[in-house]
Amino acid sequence: MWPVDAATSPRCGRPTIGIIGGGQLGRMLALAASPLGFEVVVLDPGAGSPAAQVGAQQIVGDFHDPLALRKLAEVSDFVTIEFEHLDAGALREIAKTSAASFNPTPATISLIQDKLRQKQFLVEHGIAVGPFAAVENVAAAAVALEAYGSMVLKTRTGGFDGRGNRVVTSRVELAEAFASFNGTSLYAEQLVPFEKELAVMVARSTAGEVVAYPVVETVHERNICVEVLAPAPVDAEVAARAERMATDVAALFDGAGMFGVEMFLASSGEVLVNEIAPRVHNSGHYTQDVSRTSQFEQHVRAITGLPLGPTDLTAPAAAMVNILGERDGATDVVGVADALAVPHTNLHLYGKSPTKVDRKMGHINATGRDVAEARSRARTARQRLTV
Amino acid sequence: MWPVDAATSPRCGRPTIGIIGGGQLGRMLALAASPLGFEVVVLDPGAGSPAAQVGAQQIVGDFHDPLALRKLAEVSDFVTIEFEHLDAGALREIAKTSAASFNPTPATISLIQDKLRQKQFLVEHGIAVGPFAAVENVAAAAVALEAYGSMVLKTRTGGFDGRGNRVVTSRVELAEAFASFNGTSLYAEQLVPFEKELAVMVARSTAGEVVAYPVVETVHERNICVEVLAPAPVDAEVAARAERMATDVAALFDGAGMFGVEMFLASSGEVLVNEIAPRVHNSGHYTQDVSRTSQFEQHVRAITGLPLGPTDLTAPAAAMVNILGERDGATDVVGVADALAVPHTNLHLYGKSPTKVDRKMGHINATGRDVAEARSRARTARQRLTV
Repeated sequence: MWPVDAATSPRCGRPTIGIIGGGQLGRMLALAASPLGFEVVVLDPGAGSPAAQVGAQQIVGDFHDPLALRKLAEVSDFVTIEFEHLDAGALREIAKTSAASFNPTPATISLIQDKLRQKQFLVEHGIAVGPFAAVENVAAAAVALEAYGSMVLKTRTGGFDGRGNRVVTSRVELAEAFASFNGTSLYAEQLVPFEKELAVMVARSTAGEVVAYPVVETVHERNICVEVLAPAPVDAEVAARAERMATDVAALFDGAGMFGVEMFLASSGEVLVNEIAPRVHNSGHYTQDVSRTSQFEQHVRAITGLPLGPTDLTAPAAAMVNILGERDGATDVVGVADALAVPHTNLHLYGKSPTKVDRKMGHINATGRDVAEARSRARTARQRLTV
Repeated sequence: MWPVDAATSPRCGRPTIGIIGGGQLGRMLALAASPLGFEVVVLDPGAGSPAAQVGAQQIVGDFHDPLALRKLAEVSDFVTIEFEHLDAGALREIAKTSAASFNPTPATISLIQDKLRQKQFLVEHGIAVGPFAAVENVAAAAVALEAYGSMVLKTRTGGFDGRGNRVVTSRVELAEAFASFNGTSLYAEQLVPFEKELAVMVARSTAGEVVAYPVVETVHERNICVEVLAPAPVDAEVAARAERMATDVAALFDGAGMFGVEMFLASSGEVLVNEIAPRVHNSGHYTQDVSRTSQFEQHVRAITGLPLGPTDLTAPAAAMVNILGERDGATDVVGVADALAVPHTNLHLYGKSPTKVDRKMGHINATGRDVAEARSRARTARQRLTV
């Protein structure tokens, strides 16, 4: 049965998905939701958001405004998110009296958005993570630095794409970092030597069904994801271990939807969980062109009570390269034809303007006989394009 | 190079595709165009068209209104169509002074929309077609009936999905049919005994690149496409012949874009061309989930000067089953979860309301180890769904 009574659904008789955030993730969720018969409404402060450009209705409002959140819940049958840095408490209050279902749950958002609490929670549940420590002041941080040798100082909440992270290798850097964070709650992670960064996208449906996509390698620069290789070029044993671990991790959290589980393959051979995103994730973008069910369709299925779809690759290997802005100014896409002249490539632009240095403007997916070929194609296509 | 100077493009600096028609084909073209960075504007008389629901701007107007067509051309860099039953003469006049490129060309639309002229044109170019005859009056039709035994009387223009077709096997039926068509220009086609109906989607780009998708079997009921099987279960020799023939046919017509070439595999073993659609086509819907480049993305690439993408199947076999309305009334989609519980199925709804008997409301794509399995899955999923 269709999970919502069409007669009582607020918009046009079609069940409605409300998304907090109308950026690229909201946009790609909306593109996946339309063919399944859903209406989409996004809450986003910027009119004409990437999601609104592909047919989502938009409530123009602040993510942190409880009234705007309440309005979104009122017109939605299902409420979901494209990022977790929001007022989980307000969301919990709204969810209490709302007829809509909320996935991820406010409890999961709350747990995950505090990275220190998230790490502690993982440890409490027997998940291997790298050494970390609460550092409430410079003195505590100095003790951690002494123990770790080198470490990353991170804000407990609100950091992403490199914002809220500082690598610290000396007392001088530590003092500078503390000053720059200006009283924000921090914690420290040891800089663990690693071979690769890995990620697994796991979907859990409201009916309890769980599926995982293959483990991928993620490559970061300036703490921003720049490339994803699928499947990760690692031993089958490591891949199996990472996939099992990701599935275990996703099972710890309340609620349905996609969970992005980022991991390190440490130089020691251990797989360590780095952090969790309770949503669709950059490391799963390749699934749009190389899976029967993209992570976006899968998320929609998972949160609306639909059965999950297959997750296997439809090509031997795939690569995703992000199109990051290289200047600040009006968006001007040049080179699409040259980029797509690279065989077996697909382009996904987000409709954002202006472009900004390191702003995520789009991505390229490519396939190949192996990840080296797929990566080479994706990189070549990327190089031929400016935004 | 990007084929359009972003600075002179009329909308938001992004190149704009204008589509005459905002139904399901316009909708799926728009869904494919957004990630490539295009704006889409459709001309359609019904506000809130399927295409507008996924972010296309809409000019609400009649397809036959030259002013509305001119307005569409003015805001577009590329003008294309989702159906060919329109005023090709008006379009030709507009194209003469428009800065936009028109694909298919008005000449091709004009040639194809007159099915008698289309058939004559194919014969002039050495393409095998079944016997047909111009029948300007009942007497001429009676001569044709005498020669053919049984035949289809068709309107020369405007017919599709069974509208404009009447099977005639006797003088009595002939008289009735003539009366029912009420003076419309007609022609007759012999009812050729056939094994299967086949179709090949061919893409030709503005740069002259040509690619073909695999030959598929199409199944019609009440002259409406109900199922498509890919690849067509025919001998490799027949498949090769059909694909070569379709490529030859597409080469005869001016302009770029997808061409749907419908054929009969006659009981004699001959492959005969039935008719051409100068656009994306129901027989190519399966490509959305089983090709790296859907026919919709391919059409966008073809008409905008972008390189074409791969056309091979990413699964051993696929099937498409149309979701035709079974009653008249407000759309009420029931059974989506049950339908998607059939493994390896994808759902594509068009956002149409009301539902009507035999109205195309959506389709289901399925894959399998062979076409029998794919068809069984698609049919089962279809049966579990009502709209």
